[in-house]
Amino acid sequence: MKKAVVLLSGGLDSTACLSMALKEGYEVYPISFDYSQRHNKELDHAKRIIDYYDIKNYRIIKIENVGGSALTDTELDVPDFDGNSSIPITYVPARNIIFLSYAVGYAEVLGADFIYIGVNAVDYSGYPDCRPEFINAFEAMSNVGTKRGTLGNPIKLKTPLIHLTKAEIIKAAFENDAPLHLTTSCYKGGGKACGVCDSCVLRLKGFKEAGLVDPIEYE
Amino acid sequence: MKKAVVLLSGGLDSTACLSMALKEGYEVYPISFDYSQRHNKELDHAKRIIDYYDIKNYRIIKIENVGGSALTDTELDVPDFDGNSSIPITYVPARNIIFLSYAVGYAEVLGADFIYIGVNAVDYSGYPDCRPEFINAFEAMSNVGTKRGTLGNPIKLKTPLIHLTKAEIIKAAFENDAPLHLTTSCYKGGGKACGVCDSCVLRLKGFKEAGLVDPIEYE
Repeated sequence: MKKAVVLLSGGLDSTACLSMALKEGYEVYPISFDYSQRHNKELDHAKRIIDYYDIKNYRIIKIENVGGSALTDTELDVPDFDGNSSIPITYVPARNIIFLSYAVGYAEVLGADFIYIGVNAVDYSGYPDCRPEFINAFEAMSNVGTKRGTLGNPIKLKTPLIHLTKAEIIKAAFENDAPLHLTTSCYKGGGKACGVCDSCVLRLKGFKEAGLVDPIEYE
Repeated sequence: MKKAVVLLSGGLDSTACLSMALKEGYEVYPISFDYSQRHNKELDHAKRIIDYYDIKNYRIIKIENVGGSALTDTELDVPDFDGNSSIPITYVPARNIIFLSYAVGYAEVLGADFIYIGVNAVDYSGYPDCRPEFINAFEAMSNVGTKRGTLGNPIKLKTPLIHLTKAEIIKAAFENDAPLHLTTSCYKGGGKACGVCDSCVLRLKGFKEAGLVDPIEYE
């Protein structure tokens, strides 16, 4: 069975992505990152999703936070959704670059051929490290920067959500019986989802467009 | 004064690189990584070098080790130099990819325009992540994966050693009064340098070719 490292945040997209990797028949090695998020809720959700699937090969990697984002710095407020197309204050510098770097190292150690990452460039917050041009550039860099790449056996990135709308992601997750009731998307990380941050607004819009009911609770 | 993040391992090359960044007049922000090296000696040397220069903005970033290298896994032996051109067991998967990813995030937070990394593709151990094609690919990836890059103000990588021989690096370091007596290069990390691992052999050959005396002690 082919091995795949899967980045799992505990959110809707990465959980949909995990369900796709499992459906494809990969032996999955999910990893989550503890990067001093505002709340540990994400990691709790990730663990529940791992338990739901009864996955044994799970790792939480603790990484130092370099700061400078409303998602990691408690002195900055998470803004409500404003429809603005510029890169918001919730951008975490180099987040996916760092996550994928670890994933590449881990894949090389495991002998895994694939890395799944649930980035999406349609219904998203405008982060540069979620776009196809970033994924392609990262793969090109990994191909020349790793032993495997230089030996002609590169690690490939799988981004099955990248061109899907949020509604399409939700529909696919439902078809795969992904445990969306265990996911969390809210940037604010309270007991219930706030319903007004970028992430909640995109999620709710997606469920509405998909004609499905979001199983999580909102304030 | 322009800011530059400088990767500092405590070795000869990164110390030469730091001396060059200082000579160029940058306000330097050196960073070292604690990645479960076989020995903490490297970090002790890095700290002494920081003290020598009386640098205030220094950070040690602790990162999790993904394993699979003789430099981090104590169950694997560090081999002696064998002149073999293949990638050796001391290769650490994705090491410079992970280091540079943090450096990019840190540079973005600091507002630093440059990252100095003392990679060398002449007298080196054959690691893929020390070659110009890797550096160019990393910079291209960073340009599309960061907020700064997409706003047309990318972070640039400086690799002043990349095309120098070890002798040329040593001569340049001497000219800059770099504290080479405080550096460590041996992969084995004992009290004195072993003189027989890849790294020691390359260092000794460099001093010999430069017509200079290595100020550190060997077994």
